[in-house]
Formats: sequence, structure tokens, C-alpha cells
Amino acid sequence: MSVETFSTASRVAEQGEGVTLDELGLAARNHGMPLEALRYDLTPTGLHYILVHYDIPAADASTWRLELGGCVEQPLSIGLTELRAMSRQTVRVTLECAGNGRARQDPRPISQPWLVEAVGTAEWTGVPLAALLDLAGVRPDGVNVVFTGADHGFERGVEQDYQRGLSLTEAAEAGAIVAWEMNGEPLPPQHGYPLRLVVPGWYGMASVKWLRSIEVIDHEFTGYQNAVAYRLRRTAEEPGVPVTRIEPRALLIPPGHPDFMSRARFVKPGPVELRGRAWSGWAPVDRVEISTDGGTNWHQAQLDPAPEVDADGNEFAWRGFSYEWTATPGEYELTARAHDKSGRLQPLQAAWNRGGFANNSAHRIPVVVLD
Amino acid sequence: MSVETFSTASRVAEQGEGVTLDELGLAARNHGMPLEALRYDLTPTGLHYILVHYDIPAADASTWRLELGGCVEQPLSIGLTELRAMSRQTVRVTLECAGNGRARQDPRPISQPWLVEAVGTAEWTGVPLAALLDLAGVRPDGVNVVFTGADHGFERGVEQDYQRGLSLTEAAEAGAIVAWEMNGEPLPPQHGYPLRLVVPGWYGMASVKWLRSIEVIDHEFTGYQNAVAYRLRRTAEEPGVPVTRIEPRALLIPPGHPDFMSRARFVKPGPVELRGRAWSGWAPVDRVEISTDGGTNWHQAQLDPAPEVDADGNEFAWRGFSYEWTATPGEYELTARAHDKSGRLQPLQAAWNRGGFANNSAHRIPVVVLD
Repeated sequence: MSVETFSTASRVAEQGEGVTLDELGLAARNHGMPLEALRYDLTPTGLHYILVHYDIPAADASTWRLELGGCVEQPLSIGLTELRAMSRQTVRVTLECAGNGRARQDPRPISQPWLVEAVGTAEWTGVPLAALLDLAGVRPDGVNVVFTGADHGFERGVEQDYQRGLSLTEAAEAGAIVAWEMNGEPLPPQHGYPLRLVVPGWYGMASVKWLRSIEVIDHEFTGYQNAVAYRLRRTAEEPGVPVTRIEPRALLIPPGHPDFMSRARFVKPGPVELRGRAWSGWAPVDRVEISTDGGTNWHQAQLDPAPEVDADGNEFAWRGFSYEWTATPGEYELTARAHDKSGRLQPLQAAWNRGGFANNSAHRIPVVVLD
Repeated sequence: MSVETFSTASRVAEQGEGVTLDELGLAARNHGMPLEALRYDLTPTGLHYILVHYDIPAADASTWRLELGGCVEQPLSIGLTELRAMSRQTVRVTLECAGNGRARQDPRPISQPWLVEAVGTAEWTGVPLAALLDLAGVRPDGVNVVFTGADHGFERGVEQDYQRGLSLTEAAEAGAIVAWEMNGEPLPPQHGYPLRLVVPGWYGMASVKWLRSIEVIDHEFTGYQNAVAYRLRRTAEEPGVPVTRIEPRALLIPPGHPDFMSRARFVKPGPVELRGRAWSGWAPVDRVEISTDGGTNWHQAQLDPAPEVDADGNEFAWRGFSYEWTATPGEYELTARAHDKSGRLQPLQAAWNRGGFANNSAHRIPVVVLD
């Protein structure tokens, strides 16, 4: 009858252990963005990656309240109608799951088994978090802001609402917004209907969905998702360091046509325009390189013009790139790597960590160029 | 350099063989409907299951042409504007992937590894296929109709456009429609934008997406997806029988709250309303039973009113059901089974077949009722 029977400690896979039915259970509900959808500037609804920790809550926008309290002068309780009457902002943001790439780590951390597709780009419309905090008046003793969603469940034996904290400085620097629209439509249920946080530049775990409470606290938040999960560590015992901003990554639209089962690619010989998108949560991408021999030789890709920048910037949206490849018959391994203005370069092989987080190893696409 | 290196014969998993990276690659792009989404009469966009054999094609509605030819008096080439000017019809249809349940078969056929979530219900708007066939005038020598999509790839070494055939009788009896809207919006890319076939009552493989050609032929269609894939067989050698209509199935909304990793459920003691949906492609569902002890004892569920029926019927949309359970502390295994008016009863354990098709074994949900 105990919670512990079904809600167990984290583990990594044994050597040679295939993907488990538990991992498959998560892969069947959550999903990545099919890589051919890199062709769209804005990811169409339903193709954007989705990770739901517990269940998608049933929600009603007409009765939804956002509570803002804690270390503030004037606690607030706001409905959607009031929020929509405030001065709104739209930001184009590339979101990526912190666990993207996990299933290719060796040994494989057992959790949502992402390969490489846990990404998407959308335009989010809402009010800046800063405007809400100003309205409530943050007291001088405020240190962290805690965001609580309506999703509720168990994780490694701990019952919880999904909850994440940010320092007031982090929240301000990121330009976080409280959003009710995705690509000009009300949020779909799986993306946080009717209200969510979006923290540009940060891995998706910071962007709390089904947002019902914002609380300013006078100390560092030590809730489960900050202090236990979403930390980079090599052993289960060490405290580790927090997962924060998105590491640079480039992904290619796989060229040619796929095999159904292996997803291997077959390409006709001749000129092939390789296209893709690259992003980083640390700084805009300023260089993308492409290799057709698995990373031995690199070629500079042509960057598309940067996305148009509004008053508040779109620097955390992906950027397109292209490279003209002359394909001759044979076997190839295509890969791409991104570099950003902070000096970060995407590695061929990222360092292993026990949670499988922030793994931006370059994606490799086997391609056969037919005779 | 050969296609055969990467596009291999079908196989079933070895005993104890975990889910492979190839299977995971399919699970990461395609996705099921999270079971809590059984709460919606119409599945919101992005939550409906999706299976794409190859890549989602790039498509432009303004230049899209549907060619209708073969054994007809007057071949047609029709654009979206002309189709939208014809008399339209909206049908509510539950679609399910023929491979739903595959990953729980033992031994497990290696393919898209569905557990149980490959389902969804939508309202599709378009023109009846019969109206298009009437317009072209089917000649007396017409036997089958072949539908070709714009998706192109390789499967077990065979290069192909995705293509399926139906007999003229099957197409007429099913009330197939050629649709450009899903739930009142243009089709999303992953559901066939800009045009697809919807064959009510049939497993999803019949509903060809990105439809660009309809050809009436004077013989039985023997293309790959009819003659090789999508057949019920126990060995690789036997011809097998075609997969056609959807077998009855009931699914419960898992009650209480989940564990993140195991998806096991925790429920508070007391009255719990168990709700779910049931469907069959053979005939309307007329009975659903629920068990809380893994199928030893069964209780009759209350059926919701049947969906409102338009002129042309919605008999292939799922039907809601409920059962009031008094939960007392302990461990339970919830399950449900559907019965339809054709006399088909969903089994606890469906017969094994090598493709993992039409597996409507009852879904089992382990539940812990807390003290």
C-alpha cells in the first residue's frame, strides 16, 4: 500500500538494458518535434515538444485565478479577464526540455527518454512578470519567486504540486512573461491552458504551466524540482549544480527520404541544400558548422537573417542556417554544431550527468546517397 | 550503399529484449493521446494520436491538386478552392492506430511501440468520397479505389508513396470523406494538411493523409500497405488477412494522481467516479463493464447519451461511460471492456499476431488507494 512501491529512486540503466516500459510510457504521452518541422519558423501547434510531469489538469479560464503573494506590499488575485486588460507583450521563444538527448547518454539515465527532438518555437503573448511584481510591490526582503502549477503528482516518493523557484534577478534578467496565448491562440491544454510562465533562454522546466500561484519568499527556494531534480550531478549523493539556461544546439532537417523503421535517410546524388535551426539560451547563435563525415571536417553554414526583433527582443528564438552539399554516392554521417556570442561551442559529445540534463551532443544523421 | 542495410525485414523482439532505439525513435516523433484527454468529447489539436510513416510533407494549399482518374468517365483535377465550394459534410470520428497495444504483445513485434494511447476523436469536414466518384463517373469495370499521399519513403527495402486501396463497396459502406478541416480549422500539417481521406470505422492506416491522388482500378490493389503491411498473420510467410475495422475498446481516465516515472496512480479513499470512453468500428458500443480486481469481477458502467447524430451519423465516435467506485485502502487493478451491437466483446487478452495489429486487450491500471 505504500507510495514507495510505485514511486522509486532515480537510477541509470544497466549496461545493454533496453528502454523500459516505464520509459516507453512517458515517450507515448509526451512527444518531441519531428525534425522535418524544423522547416517552420513557428512550430505548428501539436508539433512543439511537450513534457507533462503528472497529468494535464482540467481547467476553466473563466474561473481561473492567479494568486500573487508572499513578500509583497499588496497581494493580488487576478483572473484572465483582468490579465488580458493589461499591457501585453509577445515574445518568440525557442523552448527545449532539459532532458533532451538523455536517451543517448551512456549509461542512460532512466526518465523521459528523449533522443533529440524535445524542442519547439512559439510566440507567447502575456504580461511581463515584472509588471505583475511591480503591481504587487516586492518588499526589500524578497529573494526568490516561487511558481506553482495546478499539476499534482508523486516523484521519487514525494507528493507535490509542480513548483519551481527563480531568484528575483534571474526572473528579471530572463524577461519572464505570464502568458495565455501561444501563436495567437489560447494555450492548448498540454501547454498550460489557461495560464503559464515562459522564461526565455531557460530550459523548459522553468516555464511552469497551469500557473496558479506566484509567491515571493525571503530565502532560497529548496523545493523538489530545484533542489532534488534538475541538477547536474555525477552521483546520486552530491548536491550538484542547478540546470538553468539552454546550451547551444544545432539540428538539421534530415535530407532525402526516410526508412520507416530505422529513420535512416536515402538521398539522390547531386546538390542538396542542408537546412536547420540553431539556438542557445546564453546568447544569440553567431556561427553554425556542418560536417558530412561525422565531425572530422567542418564547413561554415550560411546563417539566415536573425528573426525580426521587437522592442523586447527575440534573441531566444532559433535561427535558420543552410549549407549546399554536393552529394555523391556513398554513406555519410551528417552533423551540425552551434556557437554562440557568449563563446559556447556545442560539443560532439557532452559530459555525462546522472539526470541526463543539458546534453547538447551534436546530432548525427546517417545518410545513404544512392547510385 | 544498399537500401537493405538500413531498411530491413520485420522482426519480433527476443525474449526479454528491451525497447530498441529504433522503436524509441518512432515513439519520440509519433505520439499517443495522454489518457486524461479522454475527458474531452473532441480531442484538442496536438493531443490526438499521430502516426506518420515517413516525413510530414511540406505542402501548400493554394497549389494543391487532387487527381481523380483511372476507371472513370471523366478524370478530375481539383484544387482546394473548388472542393470548398462543393456541398460539405462534417463527421465525428474516433480514429485509432492499427498498431495500438503492440508494445504489450509478447513477443513484441518491432515497430511503432504503442502502449494503449493511439486514439483520438475529431470532427472532420470535407466532401463525401461518393460525391467525387459520382462527379467523375465510375466505369463498370472499377473494382478498387487507390489513395496516394504525398509522403514518401522506404519500408523493408521497398521505396513507395504511402498508398492504400479500398474496394468500392468498402469505401461506400464506410462513408469515407475527403477532408480539409479538423475540428473547424484547416488540417494541421501532421494530420494531412491540406487534404486527407477519413474512413470512419476503419483503423487509421486507411485514412490516407496529404491526399494527392484517387485512382479507380479494375483489379484488387496489391500495394505494399495492403498486401505486405497491415495484415494479421502469425508467421512471416503466410499471406494473412487484411486489417480493416476497429475492434471494440474501452479506456478509463486514470483516477487520482500519477507517479512521474511509473505512471502508477494514487487515489484517496472514498467515492471515486471512474470515467472513460469506448468505441468500435464494427457497430455502436452498447455495453461497458468495469473491474477493479483485474477482470475477476465485472460491474456494468453507465453509458453517457450517444453523441448527437447528424444526417449522416456519428456512430463511429466514442461514447462516454462512468462507474461510481467506493475506494478503500489497498492495491487494485482497474480495467474496462467494451461490447458492441455486432456482438463483439473486448477480450482481456487479444490473440497475438506478428504485426501487432488490432490488439484490443483490456487496459490495466494499477491503483493504490492510500490510507
